[in-house]
Amino acid sequence: MIKIGLIGYGYWGPNLARNFVEASRTELVAVSDLDEERLQLARTRYPSLTTTRDHQALFADPEIDAVAIVTPVSTHFELASQALAAGKHVFLEKPLTQTSEQGEKLVEMARRAGCILHVDHTFVYTGAVRRIKQMVETGELGDLYYFDSVRVNLGLVQADVNVLWDLAVHDLAILNYIFPFEPTAVSATGMEHVAGRPATIAYLTLFYETNAIAHIYVNWLSPVKIRKTLIGASRKMIVYDDLEPSEKIKVYDKGVAIGETKESIYDTMVSYRSGDMYAPHLDPGEALRSEVDHFARCIEDGDEQLTGGAEGLRVVRILEAATESMTQRGSPVKLMR
Amino acid sequence: MIKIGLIGYGYWGPNLARNFVEASRTELVAVSDLDEERLQLARTRYPSLTTTRDHQALFADPEIDAVAIVTPVSTHFELASQALAAGKHVFLEKPLTQTSEQGEKLVEMARRAGCILHVDHTFVYTGAVRRIKQMVETGELGDLYYFDSVRVNLGLVQADVNVLWDLAVHDLAILNYIFPFEPTAVSATGMEHVAGRPATIAYLTLFYETNAIAHIYVNWLSPVKIRKTLIGASRKMIVYDDLEPSEKIKVYDKGVAIGETKESIYDTMVSYRSGDMYAPHLDPGEALRSEVDHFARCIEDGDEQLTGGAEGLRVVRILEAATESMTQRGSPVKLMR
Amino acid sequence: MIKIGLIGYGYWGPNLARNFVEASRTELVAVSDLDEERLQLARTRYPSLTTTRDHQALFADPEIDAVAIVTPVSTHFELASQALAAGKHVFLEKPLTQTSEQGEKLVEMARRAGCILHVDHTFVYTGAVRRIKQMVETGELGDLYYFDSVRVNLGLVQADVNVLWDLAVHDLAILNYIFPFEPTAVSATGMEHVAGRPATIAYLTLFYETNAIAHIYVNWLSPVKIRKTLIGASRKMIVYDDLEPSEKIKVYDKGVAIGETKESIYDTMVSYRSGDMYAPHLDPGEALRSEVDHFARCIEDGDEQLTGGAEGLRVVRILEAATESMTQRGSPVKLMR
Amino acid sequence: MIKIGLIGYGYWGPNLARNFVEASRTELVAVSDLDEERLQLARTRYPSLTTTRDHQALFADPEIDAVAIVTPVSTHFELASQALAAGKHVFLEKPLTQTSEQGEKLVEMARRAGCILHVDHTFVYTGAVRRIKQMVETGELGDLYYFDSVRVNLGLVQADVNVLWDLAVHDLAILNYIFPFEPTAVSATGMEHVAGRPATIAYLTLFYETNAIAHIYVNWLSPVKIRKTLIGASRKMIVYDDLEPSEKIKVYDKGVAIGETKESIYDTMVSYRSGDMYAPHLDPGEALRSEVDHFARCIEDGDEQLTGGAEGLRVVRILEAATESMTQRGSPVKLMR
Repeated sequence: MIKIGLIGYGYWGPNLARNFVEASRTELVAVSDLDEERLQLARTRYPSLTTTRDHQALFADPEIDAVAIVTPVSTHFELASQALAAGKHVFLEKPLTQTSEQGEKLVEMARRAGCILHVDHTFVYTGAVRRIKQMVETGELGDLYYFDSVRVNLGLVQADVNVLWDLAVHDLAILNYIFPFEPTAVSATGMEHVAGRPATIAYLTLFYETNAIAHIYVNWLSPVKIRKTLIGASRKMIVYDDLEPSEKIKVYDKGVAIGETKESIYDTMVSYRSGDMYAPHLDPGEALRSEVDHFARCIEDGDEQLTGGAEGLRVVRILEAATESMTQRGSPVKLMR
Repeated sequence: MIKIGLIGYGYWGPNLARNFVEASRTELVAVSDLDEERLQLARTRYPSLTTTRDHQALFADPEIDAVAIVTPVSTHFELASQALAAGKHVFLEKPLTQTSEQGEKLVEMARRAGCILHVDHTFVYTGAVRRIKQMVETGELGDLYYFDSVRVNLGLVQADVNVLWDLAVHDLAILNYIFPFEPTAVSATGMEHVAGRPATIAYLTLFYETNAIAHIYVNWLSPVKIRKTLIGASRKMIVYDDLEPSEKIKVYDKGVAIGETKESIYDTMVSYRSGDMYAPHLDPGEALRSEVDHFARCIEDGDEQLTGGAEGLRVVRILEAATESMTQRGSPVKLMR
Repeated sequence: MIKIGLIGYGYWGPNLARNFVEASRTELVAVSDLDEERLQLARTRYPSLTTTRDHQALFADPEIDAVAIVTPVSTHFELASQALAAGKHVFLEKPLTQTSEQGEKLVEMARRAGCILHVDHTFVYTGAVRRIKQMVETGELGDLYYFDSVRVNLGLVQADVNVLWDLAVHDLAILNYIFPFEPTAVSATGMEHVAGRPATIAYLTLFYETNAIAHIYVNWLSPVKIRKTLIGASRKMIVYDDLEPSEKIKVYDKGVAIGETKESIYDTMVSYRSGDMYAPHLDPGEALRSEVDHFARCIEDGDEQLTGGAEGLRVVRILEAATESMTQRGSPVKLMR
Repeated sequence: MIKIGLIGYGYWGPNLARNFVEASRTELVAVSDLDEERLQLARTRYPSLTTTRDHQALFADPEIDAVAIVTPVSTHFELASQALAAGKHVFLEKPLTQTSEQGEKLVEMARRAGCILHVDHTFVYTGAVRRIKQMVETGELGDLYYFDSVRVNLGLVQADVNVLWDLAVHDLAILNYIFPFEPTAVSATGMEHVAGRPATIAYLTLFYETNAIAHIYVNWLSPVKIRKTLIGASRKMIVYDDLEPSEKIKVYDKGVAIGETKESIYDTMVSYRSGDMYAPHLDPGEALRSEVDHFARCIEDGDEQLTGGAEGLRVVRILEAATESMTQRGSPVKLMR
């Protein structure tokens, strides 16, 4: 049984807590939060919990094997560093860190400490994203043309990071997981609409060595909630709508082909293919449970990490470059590996 | 009765022909097309028509008052120049021309000839777009934050122009009509996915002197058809879905406000407003009929043009700059006025 | 070439006229209507047409091979009788007649005259309905459980027939086409909501010798338009939404199975199956064109009729019995064959 | 603080438990269930709970003020009788009882015992249904024409009651709440599709003294989940879609009017009105919490009951009559008051 201490019982923390409680290989033993009311709420639900306003107590507790950090991104580096220094495995809320430099340090610290550093890229553990990954790997989709994602709603405008770091982080985690190649450059645009706050709307384009292209649109000030991703490829195309209750993925047998022409003013002729659509039945299990189980297996069985520090760092590097591009109204910024 | 000669009886030409026939102030008298089969089709529907494979005959015919040019963009400049030189009013398919230089010349020629040069920005004549314009003008929306438009489908991949010139032209016409200010720069990205053809997918961001921002996403290789525009503003927000059969516009009483905070780590507090939504009843008339009537009134009554050469030129300048930006992977290009 | 005379150039007549004009084996030669304005409109579109306010002229014209009757149902029997008496083939708008007695006479007259009596059950000629029929015949669906159809909108409240005769006639034509067995009884309920007019809302249940059941809901006073049919069966289930632009049919691999139980209070255990969904690509052709072509083949090639007088009569018998049941607030009425 | 004992910790019990725990005026002190595993689950969540396999213990406990009965309908009468005999207030799962005779007895027992007998008609406590009720009461809707409800999904086929008793009970509770008059007769049809189980699909029509009509369609074997109600009236019409995440109610300014006619074959002329649609912002609170609070106020403050035994009995009477009508294939059954 992996004993877990959780830091931050705000909006997302309770979901994580519930899964640590209910999963078979983890046990939630302590919760820390700065707000006594939140701790009271945690104790009402889990009366046997140790609660504290001092997160250092969790690092100091030899009984705790792993720490889940569910706090604002500005605190990630310091809290995760301390946890790793104390020899704890870390389950860290996304994004990994505020800068790639911090991220690199954490990855290195985890390596040296021999601890698991896990980043909470939850969507990678959904049935929908896993199925898309599988369609890429089996070649069902063919050559990848584009990944186009929209993630907008009337959301919590944050004070410390722009909307890319809050919302696009999800799409980047999904994209990096399913695209089998690395982006080479990024162009991003965006705008602030709330006084004193960072950009509330942003657009990000990723370039690759192939003719693949990825685009992510995020917005905290949308009147409606949209979570929709189009994936274009040579053999099949996908519409992934995360708000659909039962048919999240639709796979279309549609496309174009180049053919000979008879005589016209065009030198080639494009033909169109339009076949059946299907919506695969997806694993209905909760993604967060799969993720917690995976975290446990990484610690105890040495499973390969799906979303470890390295994956978190890939996302942070893109966010960092995109934020830079955004200050230059879309000028492309190269991505180093 | 304004006597019309129409050049190009392909995909869009028949729609225009029908409206010239049925409108009360216009009369379709002649059609020209390079393809005899298309002319045969036109005669079957309108047996009294004069048809010809030689469009010059239309310019030479003194009976003809106005020429409608419904041909590929690469022919627009030459055909419209000849028509204006012959003293004909011109109803020109969008986009105006292939370059802004050509567009400027056409505008000047029309001015000197005292002829009406009309560009077919059809959406400006829909009940939906007119209603949005009205909501901007009356102040119902408040300060404009963003215009975000998606126009994608499995479309006809063209040989002479990229997808911006085919699809984004609609969104730019709508945007320029409803936004009361001029864009100052554009950043665009995109990619080719059909061998030997221009970009099939493209993203375009427009910047303004205010904190307004506009973004347009167009794609010829989408498995599904989407025509959706979000408009964010300080008082109300709009979702305009052109594929909705009856509720094309939904107006949301949603937004954010900045307030005082009590003590927290944030210096300001953002609050959220969520009120009723309404869908105004829209004029169900055909946009193209309104447009043809407007064209007739511009000629005969001297009405002010809504989508004349100057409006067409504004759009071409943006498309030109966007295409340039696209070759530089999003580097912003300034827009001159 | 089958020469067609058309009676009734109102709402639906022009659609039929266009198809007779454009189909390869029919030629529209004459149109009759009581309203001179409608005739004027017909001549504008088809200048070579003979038009008349006297439909008798069509029956008397030896050049005319077939008559299309697109008039209110109260006139069907008399007009069709006269046409058949004159030796004309008849393309008759649905429903066949106002009573089954009239319908039986027409069927007999057509048989004696050796003329084709065709009823315009247009939906039978759509790609969607044909595909469903095929799924029934190949056994893909398994045993049929239910057919549940909703056809509602803010529609034209009629003076001579209740809403069943106007709207449910479509669903009954579809149902009779795809269900391989005959209904044995009908129960119907409904209500009048417009003074002096027949029922504007109605519900109809059909019983069979098996445990299949069919239900149709029609309504002229609905705020929204719905055209949705659910078909339940043992192997697959179908949702057929005629308003979907591209995915009209969705086929679900869902169902229940009865199994053994371990011990519980229930003597059997029901298990549930939930698999993939698919939307077959459908023939995008216009149904009315297929129907007109079929009509021509029935006349010239002796093809078996899909929707002849006998099919029209099956529908009228159900409508008649349903109307009777409706006056008795749902008391079942047996259906004779 | 009202101390609650809960009987039945199956599918719905935990939701109710959570609300009794979190509501301010109730305290969950004991849970009873026949299954030890379910009790174990309850203790994990609420460690201070008393749990027992013997529900009699709850009736005998003088500390317990009220009992919540969340068990199959076949047990309702006996359990509720015992609870009332023990002087406990009762929160009873819907439907009230299996027969109206049982229901009458319970109502009488509660009256004599001076105890609150509450029936869990949850939907009556939703923001959506309350808003509709308000639109009826203020006259915004005008004269009520029809209530048409669809509640279908691939559901749990039950052994003891047909689908009406499981699903239509919700619609009847809503209908009785918002319609200001009593139904006079019912006609119902349905069919069994699972061997040894009662009807899995059913249709029910209610008649009134006015020209209002209500219809409910329920189905346990639908491939898709639908929860949609249309309400037609003279001034406004409503579409209430419970699956819509944010716009559950849409109010349409649509309708018909009877006017004078000029000359035609029709003696009156129907005109159509089509205005704006709006979706009111609804109270986003959880209905079950409102209901638990209401239950507490009925006990402690003497508030008038919204869904007491009398309301439960109205629904049971209709279900009973509908089940009878169903065995007679739709023959109408009168409703006594």
